[in-house]
Amino acid sequence: MAPVYNAAVLIYSQADILDFAGPLEVLTTSPPPGKESVFQTTTVGFNNPTKVANNAITIAPDVSIQELEANLSNYDILIIPGAAVEPVKAILSPDSDEGKAILSLIKKFTSLPPRKETGRRVLQSVCTGAVLLAAAGILANRTVTTHHLCYDIVKEVADQAAGGESNINVVKKRWVDAGSTDAGVKILNAGGVTSGLDTTLHLMETLVGKERADWAAEIIEFERRKQEDAWGIQK
Amino acid sequence: MAPVYNAAVLIYSQADILDFAGPLEVLTTSPPPGKESVFQTTTVGFNNPTKVANNAITIAPDVSIQELEANLSNYDILIIPGAAVEPVKAILSPDSDEGKAILSLIKKFTSLPPRKETGRRVLQSVCTGAVLLAAAGILANRTVTTHHLCYDIVKEVADQAAGGESNINVVKKRWVDAGSTDAGVKILNAGGVTSGLDTTLHLMETLVGKERADWAAEIIEFERRKQEDAWGIQK
Repeated sequence: MAPVYNAAVLIYSQADILDFAGPLEVLTTSPPPGKESVFQTTTVGFNNPTKVANNAITIAPDVSIQELEANLSNYDILIIPGAAVEPVKAILSPDSDEGKAILSLIKKFTSLPPRKETGRRVLQSVCTGAVLLAAAGILANRTVTTHHLCYDIVKEVADQAAGGESNINVVKKRWVDAGSTDAGVKILNAGGVTSGLDTTLHLMETLVGKERADWAAEIIEFERRKQEDAWGIQK
Repeated sequence: MAPVYNAAVLIYSQADILDFAGPLEVLTTSPPPGKESVFQTTTVGFNNPTKVANNAITIAPDVSIQELEANLSNYDILIIPGAAVEPVKAILSPDSDEGKAILSLIKKFTSLPPRKETGRRVLQSVCTGAVLLAAAGILANRTVTTHHLCYDIVKEVADQAAGGESNINVVKKRWVDAGSTDAGVKILNAGGVTSGLDTTLHLMETLVGKERADWAAEIIEFERRKQEDAWGIQK
């Protein structure tokens, strides 16, 4: 029997809706006929409820960050969505308890060894979620990506976290495999918003195979884009 | 000053997350520098909270269906997401108070004249949301679309609602302009899931112009697909 991968999806104040809804859609797509679902998802947030997307929608996360942390080693995947620049700055303000809890969660997750049951552990950012990873100090000396208007911000925040030059290298791709932490957690960064769909399909392909990822793409009527097909207008 | 379009986005039990998150993402995208936002969104649901996407996420709708109906003439746009086949059948079961309230809302909305302030009124289905429109009896004698695996179901439900041959014509497109109701409400149908992004961008282009819709597509890193580019594998 295929292992079941447990994915936690972070929700936070004014997070971008498609940044987390895209990965959730891919991971919860009905499996092909006769196959089992291989992903179990859990939403996690500091505030319950949490208003997102410029207050356009209100989410009740399944668990608090504290509850997730009590059980963190059971999670194979942690997804960190982005937000517009102002709400990301608000989260990173030293006054934000929500922000402190998020950065602490990212650090704890990336310090875990691969999960015993699956041999995997993956942290995936979407869009400006990479800025939160940068603030947690885990992007120094890595090649990464983020939303195509936010390359400078990721670099600036990574340098701040490093207390100087972070040697971060921000590139224009749909997604980047940014390597693994010392503990063995793989870091994936998606470009902006809908690039999170391609990235989670890539993750699904890595874990469960191309046929399964192509099936999910068919169900959501989405033509998968290649890693090199970074968003068009800036080409 | 450009008019502000009020959009209500329906949430219901086990609705597909991207079916409603896609349109919400497009409508809430930050406007270009120096421009005002021209959409105001409201989520509406029968149950509060409402679990969607095979229980993957819990939403607290902004207003109940009853509250929306008390103020329905102020809404220019109503978006009806789809769901997998089983939850759609559950909604359409004669025992479902949620389903009855949804069909009643669709009928009331499509009986309204265009909104006085904007001269518009648009009902947009995404994916199997078209099955709910069919059940409300408003797709007879129209050319429509839906998720590429659900053409037969829309036809079957439209015929049931018509008490015989509905003369519905289901076609393979990213979206269809299915014409207007007697009262003057335009009906748009999106194909499956991510086709809702293209359809809402098309709607935005109709209301606010191509430049604005292309801006939103750029922000979400989405290459707009053409109306004729129905999902690929079945070609």
